[in-house]
Amino acid sequence: MEKYVYGVDIGGTNIKFGLFSIPKMELIQKHENSTPLTNHETSVFTLVAETINKINKENNIEISQVEGVGIAVPCPVKNGYVEKCPNLKWEKLDIHSSLSNYLPSGIKIAVSNDANIAAYGENQSLEIPHKNAIFYTLGTGVGGGIIIDGEILEGRTGAGGEIGHMHVFEGTEPCSCGLSGCLEQVCGTSAILKKARELSLIYPTQLNLEKLTVKDVFDYAKSGDTVAMKVVNRIGEYMAISASILSVSLDPDIFIIGGGISKAGDILIDTIKKHYINHARFGTGDIPFVLAKTGNDAGIIGAAYYVAKKNT
Amino acid sequence: MEKYVYGVDIGGTNIKFGLFSIPKMELIQKHENSTPLTNHETSVFTLVAETINKINKENNIEISQVEGVGIAVPCPVKNGYVEKCPNLKWEKLDIHSSLSNYLPSGIKIAVSNDANIAAYGENQSLEIPHKNAIFYTLGTGVGGGIIIDGEILEGRTGAGGEIGHMHVFEGTEPCSCGLSGCLEQVCGTSAILKKARELSLIYPTQLNLEKLTVKDVFDYAKSGDTVAMKVVNRIGEYMAISASILSVSLDPDIFIIGGGISKAGDILIDTIKKHYINHARFGTGDIPFVLAKTGNDAGIIGAAYYVAKKNT
Repeated sequence: MEKYVYGVDIGGTNIKFGLFSIPKMELIQKHENSTPLTNHETSVFTLVAETINKINKENNIEISQVEGVGIAVPCPVKNGYVEKCPNLKWEKLDIHSSLSNYLPSGIKIAVSNDANIAAYGENQSLEIPHKNAIFYTLGTGVGGGIIIDGEILEGRTGAGGEIGHMHVFEGTEPCSCGLSGCLEQVCGTSAILKKARELSLIYPTQLNLEKLTVKDVFDYAKSGDTVAMKVVNRIGEYMAISASILSVSLDPDIFIIGGGISKAGDILIDTIKKHYINHARFGTGDIPFVLAKTGNDAGIIGAAYYVAKKNT
Repeated sequence: MEKYVYGVDIGGTNIKFGLFSIPKMELIQKHENSTPLTNHETSVFTLVAETINKINKENNIEISQVEGVGIAVPCPVKNGYVEKCPNLKWEKLDIHSSLSNYLPSGIKIAVSNDANIAAYGENQSLEIPHKNAIFYTLGTGVGGGIIIDGEILEGRTGAGGEIGHMHVFEGTEPCSCGLSGCLEQVCGTSAILKKARELSLIYPTQLNLEKLTVKDVFDYAKSGDTVAMKVVNRIGEYMAISASILSVSLDPDIFIIGGGISKAGDILIDTIKKHYINHARFGTGDIPFVLAKTGNDAGIIGAAYYVAKKNT
């Protein structure tokens, strides 16, 4: 009898579901709900359980065929426990045991932070997963996940992998984390748009500053726009500095670059690499950089892999 | 019958030996030799084997009572293999199998980088060893070791834990690693002396600039000397920045500060902590900082713990 796992990506706006066959990890069905607006401490879990039952029915799957449910959440997680999750108004919540109240016993549950889960999934979906991998997610926020010895590094409080808040420059403007000089303040969406606007006061540009997007910045950089090229170059340089710091500390097998901004593609990787070679210490210069493959499905794929691995 | 392990710390100048009883890890005897000047690829191992036999004899220990020999070496090591060790003129040398040619079979051998070994020993000699610990060694060079899940993080090429070469400022002067902006360029011995001399051109000082030592700088800082205080403050600030980067990436359980410069004591830890609290992101502000305890014996103690753990 075929067995399955679910990967569930709980965000502040939407909850995404993926049904996967195991051990092949074939995606059978995707589904998306809005995140409930009230009673988050119970309604999210009710919705997860109900949606799983619904998807099971649509695919003629018995609940006994479901081996596990992997959960990605948008906040630090330590051993399935969340201290605080502003997006979901959770406080001091044991996600693992909360969800288990809504699912039949015997179904494995595995919970971690969404970026850590994405890191795990990206590494697992490589032909041969690496032992040590560092994943960046570049978007509105900049985050990441660190895989050491094949496992998610949650750290003491679950803050492991929050590499968007590495100090990489002397800054005074406050970052979303409350401090300054963070990588996110160079490579996050609003920092990118802000820098493009700033530079457009100094240099000529074809960018439409009224309706500026990160995609525009990369597209115009490809066609040689001065401002766009300078902004992309700056992203590459600070990503390279941050990667050089992580290399000389962790000496990983690979860097994987994901998140919405990574849709820019080769120009992003190539610019990071160009700078990285000038910043890499000792023998770390040839650590490969690759684009993430799982895209918008990083959360559900990662969560599915994460719980599937727990099952074996 | 009592059992023993040896911890051997191979440096460019001296080779230190420690004989330890197990499982109590009591130091029975210490011994020190000059590092042989020629034929390093064999002479070092001959000396190690001969010295072990000599110490055994002096303590009425049969070789069969020796469970293992732990080795610390002053270069990157990956699974017992050294790509290049300038201090010892080793190239592409499998330390593990080289040494095993000189010791009876059945004796366990465990080899790693000296700073990694020191990190391991410092963590193991805590009342309850931590899961994740970061060790800094401050001296002529600045290095360190990272313990994740109780194990040394060697990384892809053995460069794991080389945290003295984290990029922490925008610099142009070359560091010993060939790049610039490294932590070592603020917190290493020559950087400290240089900064004190520079500042003494601007501010009044009681420091004897002719015979300046790092110990002087810390001693005079304790008694309120302006230049000395500024230098110590700067060390504290950049150590704090580097620790904040590692916290937000690895979220360790503890920071341990060792190496010759850590003999400065509480003033060093207190200054780092004072700055750390301003740089720590999220919930990482309360990660403890402690002084290393094993001092000059860090290498032999760490190597002994490292091989003892391998034995169990």
